[in-house]
Amino acid sequence: MAIRHDSISFLSDLGAVDGTVGLVKAIVRDLAPHAAVVDLTHDIPAYDVRAGGLALARAIGYVPAGVVLAVVDAGERRPVAIEVAGGNGVIVGPDNGLLATAVALAGGADRAVVLDRVEHHLPSPGAVLQVRDVFAPVAAHLCNGVDLADLGTLVDPDTLLPGVVPLPTVPPELAATGGVQAQVLWVDRWGNCQLNVGPDELVPWGGTVGAALQIAAGDVVRVVHRVEHSGQLGAGAVGLVLDPFGMLALVVDRRSAADELQLAPGDQVTVTPLTDGGAGGATGAVSTPVSLTPPNVRR
Amino acid sequence: MAIRHDSISFLSDLGAVDGTVGLVKAIVRDLAPHAAVVDLTHDIPAYDVRAGGLALARAIGYVPAGVVLAVVDAGERRPVAIEVAGGNGVIVGPDNGLLATAVALAGGADRAVVLDRVEHHLPSPGAVLQVRDVFAPVAAHLCNGVDLADLGTLVDPDTLLPGVVPLPTVPPELAATGGVQAQVLWVDRWGNCQLNVGPDELVPWGGTVGAALQIAAGDVVRVVHRVEHSGQLGAGAVGLVLDPFGMLALVVDRRSAADELQLAPGDQVTVTPLTDGGAGGATGAVSTPVSLTPPNVRR
Amino acid sequence: MAIRHDSISFLSDLGAVDGTVGLVKAIVRDLAPHAAVVDLTHDIPAYDVRAGGLALARAIGYVPAGVVLAVVDAGERRPVAIEVAGGNGVIVGPDNGLLATAVALAGGADRAVVLDRVEHHLPSPGAVLQVRDVFAPVAAHLCNGVDLADLGTLVDPDTLLPGVVPLPTVPPELAATGGVQAQVLWVDRWGNCQLNVGPDELVPWGGTVGAALQIAAGDVVRVVHRVEHSGQLGAGAVGLVLDPFGMLALVVDRRSAADELQLAPGDQVTVTPLTDGGAGGATGAVSTPVSLTPPNVRR
Repeated sequence: MAIRHDSISFLSDLGAVDGTVGLVKAIVRDLAPHAAVVDLTHDIPAYDVRAGGLALARAIGYVPAGVVLAVVDAGERRPVAIEVAGGNGVIVGPDNGLLATAVALAGGADRAVVLDRVEHHLPSPGAVLQVRDVFAPVAAHLCNGVDLADLGTLVDPDTLLPGVVPLPTVPPELAATGGVQAQVLWVDRWGNCQLNVGPDELVPWGGTVGAALQIAAGDVVRVVHRVEHSGQLGAGAVGLVLDPFGMLALVVDRRSAADELQLAPGDQVTVTPLTDGGAGGATGAVSTPVSLTPPNVRR
Repeated sequence: MAIRHDSISFLSDLGAVDGTVGLVKAIVRDLAPHAAVVDLTHDIPAYDVRAGGLALARAIGYVPAGVVLAVVDAGERRPVAIEVAGGNGVIVGPDNGLLATAVALAGGADRAVVLDRVEHHLPSPGAVLQVRDVFAPVAAHLCNGVDLADLGTLVDPDTLLPGVVPLPTVPPELAATGGVQAQVLWVDRWGNCQLNVGPDELVPWGGTVGAALQIAAGDVVRVVHRVEHSGQLGAGAVGLVLDPFGMLALVVDRRSAADELQLAPGDQVTVTPLTDGGAGGATGAVSTPVSLTPPNVRR
Repeated sequence: MAIRHDSISFLSDLGAVDGTVGLVKAIVRDLAPHAAVVDLTHDIPAYDVRAGGLALARAIGYVPAGVVLAVVDAGERRPVAIEVAGGNGVIVGPDNGLLATAVALAGGADRAVVLDRVEHHLPSPGAVLQVRDVFAPVAAHLCNGVDLADLGTLVDPDTLLPGVVPLPTVPPELAATGGVQAQVLWVDRWGNCQLNVGPDELVPWGGTVGAALQIAAGDVVRVVHRVEHSGQLGAGAVGLVLDPFGMLALVVDRRSAADELQLAPGDQVTVTPLTDGGAGGATGAVSTPVSLTPPNVRR
């Protein structure tokens, strides 16, 4: 017996201008009028699967039970639906790695289907527009209680494309002195730069709250203060704080750290103990696959 | 007995910044709390009735039964409400041509009123803001089952301003060789340039899938490939594909055709068989009125 | 017995990009699925408490009964909830002056609490994100009928930070001739510049409809016409009209007065009778506190 859902949390790179998001909402309202569409954001940069996957991961712990529809750079890869949390959630989107981290955070995939039953899609007056013709009606059908298995061919979740999450590394030249090679995961509206570094990763070599550290990013080398919050910083000083999503972030009080440090998502940042010299050369972070199956992470 | 509606599909050029869209939603929630507002888009360029009419036409086949509210460049023209589909739909907006194509696509007008019953409007603390003081309460009243005829003076739909849809033309110099003078209807978020040309219009002179053609737009003359989808194009190649709305569009794989070809909505594009020379001078597309009455087009 | 609310009217400076607004909606949908979130706007300029307070004041007369959530430059000041209209409304946000004018327009505060009961907040995986961890669950709890007094410590509304509303002044050099020193409150999407001047304030010295007046703003000195609406203006002429919110605004027909006059919110504008000379030097408007308690203004 399939669960009847009543919420569709929706994230995309479709933007506000074209009206495509509006078409999805119109179709859902038409086919499943009891369902509410919760807009997470539609301003993921166009084609940026990495940014979309990270935004979805930040949101997944807060979405209501029901359908999660995430669409970034769709159309090239097959459309899939992935059941999680004993059927209380279904994450729908393209099989391009976008969904992987969210699926893992939701406990891993119970079942997955490729959405190849065209009788559940809408006919197009021209080329198929996947989000309108496939994803919107499928999300509505899930809200109406259609079982996942009726919507397509069951596939082994292990055959889905994994996501990649960059992990910080310790290059050899930092092994003795301490320090990590990090990456900017995300720059928020305020210019805060979230790093791929958890709060405890700097502690073994002295990166505790109160410490002065050093960062190097491109040609920029700066002293940063590991503080509780940006209000503790002097004017113009750069801080390293625990951000609201549990990661360390570079911040400047009431100003944009991204502007100050010339940083963008994906940029490399070396964080080291404060020295007279420098922080050494950037050698690149590694990317590590996320498994979609084992329920080893749960929020 | 008037129909009680429960959806208001809403398109405008009001943007997100001012909060005017929010006032409309607040008023609807206050006056007709059972009604859902479905945002189609509010980012139609300011005053651009043509772009708004085309966006509404792309959406009209997907909106749920109920009220459609479309507001672009309102305030100069009288506000109207047009009943379609045997009363299952009411299209509301300014009488400036914005609604005409959508009304025609919905089967033509059954009844129309000018919204001149001020007892159904909201009082303003200053000048009348039509979308807030007239359109929002009227849309809510329609959802509450107020009959169209109670909201204003019935008018003959033929007296409403028709829309204009540019049709492609065949200038004399192309009559023998084949080719059309087309126009860019719309540039989407991805830079795809929708033309006012249907998929079959190029076939008689060889514009079939697989063919190489030539386009001329301003100073730009380029070879384009009529392909099934942009993934079939080589890097940087320009293609002509059937788009998701049933029209031909100029595309570049994963890049903006509008940037590549320097095109904007309204620009003229000559499409001809591939020759050594050029495509001839642009002579301008004609504009043809859309009738609001005959039900000759239906989706 | 607390009132169970079913609407949350939501205004912020959070923008559309980060997805923070989406997190709030997801949390509300999860905790209070019967409640509708009415987006007023989320595009208040970052940190701009003045612009947010003015936008909220423009909206407050139109919001449905229930919760109003306004969040601009949160995080530095304590979060509060203010009951108005005999409990039919609760205005929630930071105690930074943002809410003051809206509270006054709603009739003044009945009760107020500082939102310090952390058992009603969400735990954060990192730093507290006030809008997500405090305001979203509190708004949902209010919709579920939790009484204000259960959400925090009752405080005297007079201890809350008042808002500041700039009032026009009459500098000594204008006392004899007539004229006011005004300020641009708001520039809307169309470039209309709302002033802090009501429709009757110019009448005593001849600023009636039909009159030609003079404005001075920075280096710009221009003749303006006090007209009923911008359609009465010649091409390029600057007018002074009663705007839809009951204030005088500088407008140019179908063009941006802000561009024409190089005006931005907060700029000083001297409005005087038409003379040969000039309008005298700008001397600055005063700011006057808004009381949160006396019910002397009501819409």
